[in-house]
Amino acid sequence: MVEPANTVGIPMNHTALLTDELDIVIPTIRNLDFLEMWRPFLQPYHLIIVQDGDPSKTIAVPEGFDYELYNRNDINRILGPKASCISFKDSACRCFGYMVSKKKYIFTIDDDCFVAKDPSGKAVNALEQHIKNLLCPSSPFFFNTLYDPYREGADFVRGYPFSLREGVSTAVSHGLWLNIPDYDAPTQLVKPKERNTRYVDAVMTIPKGTLFPMCGMNLAFDRELIGPAMYFGLMGDGQPIGRYDDMWAGWCVKVICDHLGLGVKTGLPYIYHSKASNPFVNLKKEYKGIFWQEDIIPFFQSAKLSKEAVTVQQCYMELSKMVKEKLSAIDPYFDKLADAMVTWIEAWDELNPATKV
Amino acid sequence: MVEPANTVGIPMNHTALLTDELDIVIPTIRNLDFLEMWRPFLQPYHLIIVQDGDPSKTIAVPEGFDYELYNRNDINRILGPKASCISFKDSACRCFGYMVSKKKYIFTIDDDCFVAKDPSGKAVNALEQHIKNLLCPSSPFFFNTLYDPYREGADFVRGYPFSLREGVSTAVSHGLWLNIPDYDAPTQLVKPKERNTRYVDAVMTIPKGTLFPMCGMNLAFDRELIGPAMYFGLMGDGQPIGRYDDMWAGWCVKVICDHLGLGVKTGLPYIYHSKASNPFVNLKKEYKGIFWQEDIIPFFQSAKLSKEAVTVQQCYMELSKMVKEKLSAIDPYFDKLADAMVTWIEAWDELNPATKV
Repeated sequence: MVEPANTVGIPMNHTALLTDELDIVIPTIRNLDFLEMWRPFLQPYHLIIVQDGDPSKTIAVPEGFDYELYNRNDINRILGPKASCISFKDSACRCFGYMVSKKKYIFTIDDDCFVAKDPSGKAVNALEQHIKNLLCPSSPFFFNTLYDPYREGADFVRGYPFSLREGVSTAVSHGLWLNIPDYDAPTQLVKPKERNTRYVDAVMTIPKGTLFPMCGMNLAFDRELIGPAMYFGLMGDGQPIGRYDDMWAGWCVKVICDHLGLGVKTGLPYIYHSKASNPFVNLKKEYKGIFWQEDIIPFFQSAKLSKEAVTVQQCYMELSKMVKEKLSAIDPYFDKLADAMVTWIEAWDELNPATKV
Repeated sequence: MVEPANTVGIPMNHTALLTDELDIVIPTIRNLDFLEMWRPFLQPYHLIIVQDGDPSKTIAVPEGFDYELYNRNDINRILGPKASCISFKDSACRCFGYMVSKKKYIFTIDDDCFVAKDPSGKAVNALEQHIKNLLCPSSPFFFNTLYDPYREGADFVRGYPFSLREGVSTAVSHGLWLNIPDYDAPTQLVKPKERNTRYVDAVMTIPKGTLFPMCGMNLAFDRELIGPAMYFGLMGDGQPIGRYDDMWAGWCVKVICDHLGLGVKTGLPYIYHSKASNPFVNLKKEYKGIFWQEDIIPFFQSAKLSKEAVTVQQCYMELSKMVKEKLSAIDPYFDKLADAMVTWIEAWDELNPATKV
């Protein structure tokens, strides 16, 4: 069975990349002891902690980490009535951190994610790999059979059009999980003992026109390129659905990346996901999503944005209109969600006036 | 540096799968000494050897292998005037072997491919992995981030629509290469020393709507599902182009698989590719393909087959018409190729009357 890496004794990473250009966003309801293990890799970076649930509770952060922390009172104070677009009692609240960040890049990680080991036993510096993924291009228009052609020791194979080898900018780096895989409640119930022990040494571009299930557990993105589309929706308290926050963001992000000619990478890095969430609780949160997604995914697969939509904000506003028009028939929830998408963009532009068009 | 596996002492595989339902097709101009290394894995199967070049030369096959061998005289005798569709002095002639086979599955391999080792040092039974790939479904309509969901220890991740989890039949299994990667001549010239040492432990479905560069070096397919589309075109002697035989087949196959709802898998198994071909010779063969592919690939990306095309043959005949109409403007070669595509289907149906619709 795979075990998390022991990072004790790993010297601090003195060549940490982009420390001034990247924020780490962590949603949590508990003390952040898990950061101890990440210290060699993450301490050089600034943390944005979004406290979920009861704002009177104090969250302890291990000494030496540089952070800012927002609880529900802070969110309400900063956004005023627009705070309604930020979920409560759900890790979807993390997207508030994306909005208040002023950095170019975001890495977001769950507080039950530990440092993974690669097959040689070495601790995986997940953030370093995410940064590599984001800094090198993507190749969404044609499939490269040797995976990421920009990686050392690899290239484009015979038959890959030369005109496409420059690639496009990478907007999203989606990392994976050893140990507890990211399964839905029915699969958790059916396979309670399944653990992911397969370390696949690959990074790849998800082709244009193909949707994927984006997990928010171990995710990095370029805020300037795609930030306003990274809205995690309305989940948790007062909402009919949970555990679809990252999925919702992933569908929107992929449609917009495809439209704007941006890349989405998946594969390395792995984190070690320590604890399976309760499948019965998950089923209650998920069950509407499980049947709704049968209609939502075809909707996103056929969603076409107009030529006039040239910024992420414009694309997102178009999507919100389409959601209202086409998904409200599934459930009144989508009408509310479409409104929240608009509020999110308004709040984003208010906090990030420079990016407003 | 990676080295091929030493298979001496590996006991014959007494549980070889589908021995009565699979033919191994090998195009060659030399003695098949390379089969010695493959003996533990391939001896239980029937070989179809397509002798390229001078038919008066005798090809030696290691003792104990069950085979039939076709040289150019045989091809001319069997196909008569239709033999014009089979390339001469080019490994594209291998597709004659697909046509004369009467089995459900084909595995084709080049005679400079040896047995690879997995990271644990174990010899890779490439054919066994191809059979696994072909016997389990593909998932072309939505991306699964944990790779092949049907593999042991894996599944569909959270957010994968349940309606798509049954998957579709797999028509093609595309294997990869350690040591000498399958690069085009320009890349070979620029990176003469690059070797592929990365063993990526994954099999994945190439999504619907995405084309890929199919390499014929280590390839298996379901002849009943896709055989008539596995035409390797007109290459070599008397033709203006070479080294695009497998690419041509791959573009046609993928468009037809997408239309018919069939799957294409890539990844495992690896073979050990021993010898880089001469990049100067390759450049001469490839250079027209290198600029033609800039038009051919958009052509295939936008090719739409009609609803009436419900068999592989019907799809292929439609494609041949489109090639004649749209690609002949690039070069008169495509007019000839379009005709050869028709001849190929006629010859296929003549030799395989049961599959004729």
